[in-house]
Amino acid sequence: CKNPSTVTANDFYFRGLHVAGNTSNAQGSRVTPVFATQLPGLNTLGISMVRIDYAPGGQNAPHTHPRATEILTVLEGSLEVGFVTSNPNNNHFTKTLYKGDVFVFPSNAVHYQRNTNWNAPAVAIAALSSQNPGAITIANAVFGSQPGISADILAKSFSLDVATVNFMQSKF
Amino acid sequence: CKNPSTVTANDFYFRGLHVAGNTSNAQGSRVTPVFATQLPGLNTLGISMVRIDYAPGGQNAPHTHPRATEILTVLEGSLEVGFVTSNPNNNHFTKTLYKGDVFVFPSNAVHYQRNTNWNAPAVAIAALSSQNPGAITIANAVFGSQPGISADILAKSFSLDVATVNFMQSKF
Amino acid sequence: CKNPSTVTANDFYFRGLHVAGNTSNAQGSRVTPVFATQLPGLNTLGISMVRIDYAPGGQNAPHTHPRATEILTVLEGSLEVGFVTSNPNNNHFTKTLYKGDVFVFPSNAVHYQRNTNWNAPAVAIAALSSQNPGAITIANAVFGSQPGISADILAKSFSLDVATVNFMQSKF
Amino acid sequence: CKNPSTVTANDFYFRGLHVAGNTSNAQGSRVTPVFATQLPGLNTLGISMVRIDYAPGGQNAPHTHPRATEILTVLEGSLEVGFVTSNPNNNHFTKTLYKGDVFVFPSNAVHYQRNTNWNAPAVAIAALSSQNPGAITIANAVFGSQPGISADILAKSFSLDVATVNFMQSKF
Amino acid sequence: CKNPSTVTANDFYFRGLHVAGNTSNAQGSRVTPVFATQLPGLNTLGISMVRIDYAPGGQNAPHTHPRATEILTVLEGSLEVGFVTSNPNNNHFTKTLYKGDVFVFPSNAVHYQRNTNWNAPAVAIAALSSQNPGAITIANAVFGSQPGISADILAKSFSLDVATVNFMQSKF
Amino acid sequence: CKNPSTVTANDFYFRGLHVAGNTSNAQGSRVTPVFATQLPGLNTLGISMVRIDYAPGGQNAPHTHPRATEILTVLEGSLEVGFVTSNPNNNHFTKTLYKGDVFVFPSNAVHYQRNTNWNAPAVAIAALSSQNPGAITIANAVFGSQPGISADILAKSFSLDVATVNFMQSKF
Repeated sequence: CKNPSTVTANDFYFRGLHVAGNTSNAQGSRVTPVFATQLPGLNTLGISMVRIDYAPGGQNAPHTHPRATEILTVLEGSLEVGFVTSNPNNNHFTKTLYKGDVFVFPSNAVHYQRNTNWNAPAVAIAALSSQNPGAITIANAVFGSQPGISADILAKSFSLDVATVNFMQSKF
Repeated sequence: CKNPSTVTANDFYFRGLHVAGNTSNAQGSRVTPVFATQLPGLNTLGISMVRIDYAPGGQNAPHTHPRATEILTVLEGSLEVGFVTSNPNNNHFTKTLYKGDVFVFPSNAVHYQRNTNWNAPAVAIAALSSQNPGAITIANAVFGSQPGISADILAKSFSLDVATVNFMQSKF
Repeated sequence: CKNPSTVTANDFYFRGLHVAGNTSNAQGSRVTPVFATQLPGLNTLGISMVRIDYAPGGQNAPHTHPRATEILTVLEGSLEVGFVTSNPNNNHFTKTLYKGDVFVFPSNAVHYQRNTNWNAPAVAIAALSSQNPGAITIANAVFGSQPGISADILAKSFSLDVATVNFMQSKF
Repeated sequence: CKNPSTVTANDFYFRGLHVAGNTSNAQGSRVTPVFATQLPGLNTLGISMVRIDYAPGGQNAPHTHPRATEILTVLEGSLEVGFVTSNPNNNHFTKTLYKGDVFVFPSNAVHYQRNTNWNAPAVAIAALSSQNPGAITIANAVFGSQPGISADILAKSFSLDVATVNFMQSKF
Repeated sequence: CKNPSTVTANDFYFRGLHVAGNTSNAQGSRVTPVFATQLPGLNTLGISMVRIDYAPGGQNAPHTHPRATEILTVLEGSLEVGFVTSNPNNNHFTKTLYKGDVFVFPSNAVHYQRNTNWNAPAVAIAALSSQNPGAITIANAVFGSQPGISADILAKSFSLDVATVNFMQSKF
Repeated sequence: CKNPSTVTANDFYFRGLHVAGNTSNAQGSRVTPVFATQLPGLNTLGISMVRIDYAPGGQNAPHTHPRATEILTVLEGSLEVGFVTSNPNNNHFTKTLYKGDVFVFPSNAVHYQRNTNWNAPAVAIAALSSQNPGAITIANAVFGSQPGISADILAKSFSLDVATVNFMQSKF
């Protein structure tokens, strides 16, 4: 904690959400976070914000936030979004969003977004109900952990043969 | 509560934040809320979002949110923003924000925003750490309550004469 | 935190609520707090207590507590009390209290008390649902912040001319 | 819940803490509660208040509050108060309180108060960090439950013979 | 809620954790839950318990609990267990557990257990920090949702071709 | 707190619940705790686990947990269990449990277990909704505190004469 007597307006201020994130990566998306790490004044306040950029056809792969619900609005372009409810139903709620549309991803549900336009980028602003929401990208946690989960466990879980699991694990 | 078996993706979806709010009012600003009332899927999830439009020179007058911290980012234009800490210091933290700047208004602090440009509107997106954050516009709560607070109480509180208080109360 | 092995009964004990507070000030009231600062054993326990003294005709000006509901009982004299609900209704609930009457000021509502007797003091005991409830005196936060909020923002907010705002700001 | 449109100031108001409670009972004390049952406006607000009257030599027998910390101040007379910490230390913190003294009983600790004066009553005001704090009087819960706990369980617990336990159980 | 006057000891009681669950299924495991649905007295109390049976070589596939931490102890046999931390590290903490060993799966982490013995079953008792913890089996939520997530989204997420994703989706 | 970079699987692991606790004591029972003290990874996670061993006829004397609900299952033998509700009813809910039975002791209720078999030990596993639940053994807190509670307070509370209280206090 900072000494309260040295706190200034800058502790509550962050500059940069006007800048497009670099989407030159395998998924074609970039999250620019404004969490307590970037904006110390958020500490203990239970909220944060991100900008998400999507290359044409880019996606924010299925993931969960272990400590937050997310509310997202589209600033530019269009997004296919969805989340899946827990066992036993695993209902998939999905929607195509356009500029000005708002969507909610309930706390800890597996969710994703994808830019439905292969010719133009998309941009969204999202807020999360924690100053430190965390993220678990499913593919990375399951197939890219360090060290890896036993391939036969994953093979049985995902109805794959071990060779395919080994191949997937080599990609992360 | 809705019967869970009849929940659809529409319960997590709201259309409209691309539309500029009508700022033809005394303060020259308009808040378009996406609270649990507008977006039922937010219920119990502890977050919400608003769009705020500001006419040239318009302002969102000093107010508090009884159940939420607010994080705001500027989409268009520039804003003078500030909040005041509690007794005994009543420190005023203020900043001029431009497109892409983010600012935090801690839970229950008196805060405001004003469009610093008299020739162009401004737009912000803000998120709040409650699905039902509430708002208390200070001037309206203090001088515009129904029925009014005794004019001599307000006169002594604000170092005004009773005639000025009566005049102010007649404005709300 | 103290080393638990050196905690004594004195950490849970405070002496002084029998002493009338000095009400020789502009508002004619004095709050004597028993918060975690005064009584370390309160830490993390979510409650605190205050004695409030009112000079004849004195008042505890409109304020909010950012982290607490308040419950008050009158020990001596009579009090006009009230609070105002949030937007859009700003309903003013008010009551005159006599010895032994209890009243609740919900968390974060703007509220006040005034001694209705110009010939005798009044005394109340109140409890708050936090060991560190905080207080925001509305007039001081809005017109007495350091530095001051722009006079034209306040003028538009309170339906005042700038000269009156400047005068008010000079009083704090 | 009441329909919000029919809420009035009376929902936040309770009359009666000026009246001495009837202490003509075995323990010589009486708690007059102002919980959500007596004061509906307290609902969900996490605080409540009680008046406690003590006959000369009367006591408020050892008890716990399952949902609240208690902060107490003496209005009249003097009280011997104490609480005991949890296993394994079972430290007993005790103090004699006089008018204006404040003491804290941490959440769920076994605690008690006794009027140390055999010639005059005592009065205290206490607040609790729940609108529905509950109370478990130890002797009543352990020896006076309906139906009774097996006498041999209590005999072994309290180092008593079964006949003494049977006698104690017959008293409640 | 039940009428409190009709509550009996049976509302706090559940019979059945001595019975081995049926593990004749693809994963070779069975969770027998004691949640608020099975044991109404758990409501609002923030805890629950399960028995988990594992066939020889059986596994409880990678999953998360959206509302709970889990603590597990082995009653019979031996288990390979693990969980993966969130981005960016995705550290995999793993351990082989024997009878009487205890392991913690932090809230919302992806985790699993597998019976390391191909000749004998294993049994565990686990507790969860919610009366309604929920579970999200990763493979089922991601590849078995109803309706399915677009195959090209999953292909890009998991470094697979669309044909493999289609095959996987057909298995759930 | 440990430096996160040095955390290992051992921080989430505890060995020992297969070992019977030593029940050679006055009450004939032993609680083997797995709290945050024993298992550092439990910190902040809101859950813990214990093994309870009961000698033939042994008992876990009436006690409360100041920060937790408890859910218990019988592994071996049979137990008479019960808890008592708060004032004014002090209802005693009791049940005889056999292997595989589960019972809930609501937060802060006075509760106990006793092995109903004088010829064989009993074993239970219980979980608590806190990583640091605490325990208050009623007899020890009330009659065995250091220093002792005044004997005349306890005599009046428990309908005992002072000599009996003095005798009981000498036993702890």
